[in-house]
Amino acid sequence: MKLIKLAERIGARCDGAEIEVNNVAGFATATAQSVVFVEHPRFLEGALGCAAAAVIVPDSLEIANANGKSLLRTKNTRLAFALADAELRRAEARPGGVHPSAVVDSGAEVDSSARVEALAAIAAGARIGLRSRIGPGCVIGEGVVIGADCDLVARVSVYSGTTLGDRVIVQAGAVLGGDGFGFVPDPATGKYHKFPQIGRLEIGNDVEIGANTTIDRGALDATVIADGVKLDNLVQVGHNVYVGKNVVIAAQTGISGSTVLEDNVIVAGQVGLGDHVRIGSGAILGAQCGVPSNKVLRGEGVVFWGTPARPLKECLRELATLARLARKK
Amino acid sequence: MKLIKLAERIGARCDGAEIEVNNVAGFATATAQSVVFVEHPRFLEGALGCAAAAVIVPDSLEIANANGKSLLRTKNTRLAFALADAELRRAEARPGGVHPSAVVDSGAEVDSSARVEALAAIAAGARIGLRSRIGPGCVIGEGVVIGADCDLVARVSVYSGTTLGDRVIVQAGAVLGGDGFGFVPDPATGKYHKFPQIGRLEIGNDVEIGANTTIDRGALDATVIADGVKLDNLVQVGHNVYVGKNVVIAAQTGISGSTVLEDNVIVAGQVGLGDHVRIGSGAILGAQCGVPSNKVLRGEGVVFWGTPARPLKECLRELATLARLARKK
Amino acid sequence: MKLIKLAERIGARCDGAEIEVNNVAGFATATAQSVVFVEHPRFLEGALGCAAAAVIVPDSLEIANANGKSLLRTKNTRLAFALADAELRRAEARPGGVHPSAVVDSGAEVDSSARVEALAAIAAGARIGLRSRIGPGCVIGEGVVIGADCDLVARVSVYSGTTLGDRVIVQAGAVLGGDGFGFVPDPATGKYHKFPQIGRLEIGNDVEIGANTTIDRGALDATVIADGVKLDNLVQVGHNVYVGKNVVIAAQTGISGSTVLEDNVIVAGQVGLGDHVRIGSGAILGAQCGVPSNKVLRGEGVVFWGTPARPLKECLRELATLARLARKK
Repeated sequence: MKLIKLAERIGARCDGAEIEVNNVAGFATATAQSVVFVEHPRFLEGALGCAAAAVIVPDSLEIANANGKSLLRTKNTRLAFALADAELRRAEARPGGVHPSAVVDSGAEVDSSARVEALAAIAAGARIGLRSRIGPGCVIGEGVVIGADCDLVARVSVYSGTTLGDRVIVQAGAVLGGDGFGFVPDPATGKYHKFPQIGRLEIGNDVEIGANTTIDRGALDATVIADGVKLDNLVQVGHNVYVGKNVVIAAQTGISGSTVLEDNVIVAGQVGLGDHVRIGSGAILGAQCGVPSNKVLRGEGVVFWGTPARPLKECLRELATLARLARKK
Repeated sequence: MKLIKLAERIGARCDGAEIEVNNVAGFATATAQSVVFVEHPRFLEGALGCAAAAVIVPDSLEIANANGKSLLRTKNTRLAFALADAELRRAEARPGGVHPSAVVDSGAEVDSSARVEALAAIAAGARIGLRSRIGPGCVIGEGVVIGADCDLVARVSVYSGTTLGDRVIVQAGAVLGGDGFGFVPDPATGKYHKFPQIGRLEIGNDVEIGANTTIDRGALDATVIADGVKLDNLVQVGHNVYVGKNVVIAAQTGISGSTVLEDNVIVAGQVGLGDHVRIGSGAILGAQCGVPSNKVLRGEGVVFWGTPARPLKECLRELATLARLARKK
Repeated sequence: MKLIKLAERIGARCDGAEIEVNNVAGFATATAQSVVFVEHPRFLEGALGCAAAAVIVPDSLEIANANGKSLLRTKNTRLAFALADAELRRAEARPGGVHPSAVVDSGAEVDSSARVEALAAIAAGARIGLRSRIGPGCVIGEGVVIGADCDLVARVSVYSGTTLGDRVIVQAGAVLGGDGFGFVPDPATGKYHKFPQIGRLEIGNDVEIGANTTIDRGALDATVIADGVKLDNLVQVGHNVYVGKNVVIAAQTGISGSTVLEDNVIVAGQVGLGDHVRIGSGAILGAQCGVPSNKVLRGEGVVFWGTPARPLKECLRELATLARLARKK
């Protein structure tokens, strides 16, 4: 891609030559077709000394000698670098087609621009959208709908009853739409009988799902992952959960059934949410905290911590009090 | 299935017409062949207004006008609904057979009523019982024995040395019988050497295992999952663990080596059990609690919480005391 | 293998007959070709009464009548048993070759002594070293380098940009080199954009990785797992993490981005490490403890516990203080 075209797309001013670039990189791995970025003046020397063709730099940064590099000037260089990566990836997308070792049911609809890789299995009634990639070893259940420009990297399982929007990325080993954990005890025998887990899983646009993460479908209704949600690795999302727009959840967090995370919630790693919890828009849950069942936590930008989760300040005051008392004794 | 036959099987009285039904459903997705259920009078209107053919209702509920629905009357409607789902599923089971893309070793024994789906691999000496399903991408190791009516949904790995009873359901991505985590340090070098992990994993009847859950086989002896156990997603069970009958364990809980959970224990999510722990019959472990190694906890119906786990009441009293002291200061 | 040869290799004195052995075992499963071990005199009777051909016993243990067993005498019998297992396994390694159902790109280099099993997929540019095994359903990305004597048991995913040393064991379902969790918020829209995750994952020699564990590659640089590291099941290692030599990490622990564990650190289960943490050489992190971001913990042999992690003694004193105060009130 011409640098000038890339600059336009990422909203940067390009004061360099009209060169071709094809990837973003770190300083150590940059080639003559690479774009690198500088977030802070202390990194400038590294950027100008590396092999890259072009450097994304802050608007305000004074550069006496660019050492022959083209410069892309913008306000938010980290964001511009991320956008550049997306643009260049799109430009190098691989051709569509079904690998001969893949097993695609004759009742599935795979767009001709979609790519089904080695040893993937796609069941009847599934629909794979424009330019989406179904990586090696993926298993796509009956009637699953996958939108455009999705990337299921490898060995992803998608159960029947699941729909994905556009531009959804799913890392290897994730399981989408599995049976929720619902059982009915029989008081006469002490045995548990499986409650039907026959609902749906609806995943919006621009969602990313981490490796070996599991998301259950609804019992009778739907589990919903709204647009822009980012889930890290080994996250568990139970049945009938609603995860709002642009919610970010770090690794190994678990969310029990019927819990609601409103838009823009941020959840750190290893957090546990009981069932029927509601986390208000924009709240922040600190690492390893625990929210008991049926609890409602609200507060745009408020950080909650500890188990049971409470405002961080309160938690820290309690920790300090306890430490003081233990020393005294 | 005739409604009258279903009613018999689930122990309900059927006062409706002799119609055919083939699935259970929620109100929104019910069809003219569906059975729905009502647990509380406030849901009755929804049930009678939906498309379902039949409604499971409490014995005692007075219904002036059933709106043309057949009624199935029983004491425990939630349980009846669960049982109805199981009955109708059994009736619609798919035919046996091995998908041409599956790789079944000539030394494996697959019952002719069993179903081996696309791209599954079954090694020599494995035995797959009546009507069991080995879903797409599953890997079944040498000599593994799988009983009747099991369902390994997709991409399940079963190591050599593992046996499953009847009616075991395994969600996608689970790993059964993997090597336990046992190493012997060499004091001379600081290196760890793998201690043999050559025992067995024995899984009973009516067990359900969640997505991406991992259960290690014994080091020299066996890990045992008794009849009726239900494990949620991303649970870890270490080597030589014994999980007693009808134990229920929620997501992301981890159980270290040689720990024993007696019958009917209930374990919430993200609980951690050290090694050589014993949890007495019927005890309840609250979410995120931690039980140190070698500890014994007993108490039918007693709830334990916190780390180290102690009776819930004690935990709550301590939390209240600390909060009070911190406010005072 | 002749017993005398095995004895030499594991550093034991062999005072028994010149018999053939081919496996290690527990007492219950031993055969006439098995080696068992005794760590404590109380186990001697069991060992001498079982079917094994040979028993590894402590140097100092007096044995009046060996009941016809050959004895292997050594100081550290547990270590010798572990080494014996490794030796006997090596002797029985299976022949190399590619299963006809595997999909190996013509641009991949698989050593003729390596073994690629059913339904594995190996992409262009990948290199599989001497005697390594790629188990059923594994997916090996472009340009991945796997050394000698590795064992990827089943359904392991290895992303492009990953290298494995020699003698690396990877249990089923692990994901190596997945995209890290890095996003750049766009303040104008509230959306998160994917920061490039294009670095490497470098895994050393003699590493073991547990089932369904996930290790992300670096964002721009590398994630490094040094020689001799042992990771249990369902562990999460974030991007740009450095795990030092002979570090041991138990199940369900999570390590956030750019954190460093120096050599010989021991981490128990369900521990959480924030980003940019440094754990000094030889420190020990107790189960479920949490280390906040940017924290440095040092202390060879010191045990840390709790959240935020602090020396175990301090933690216990605080717990005792709180319990006392709560009782008083």
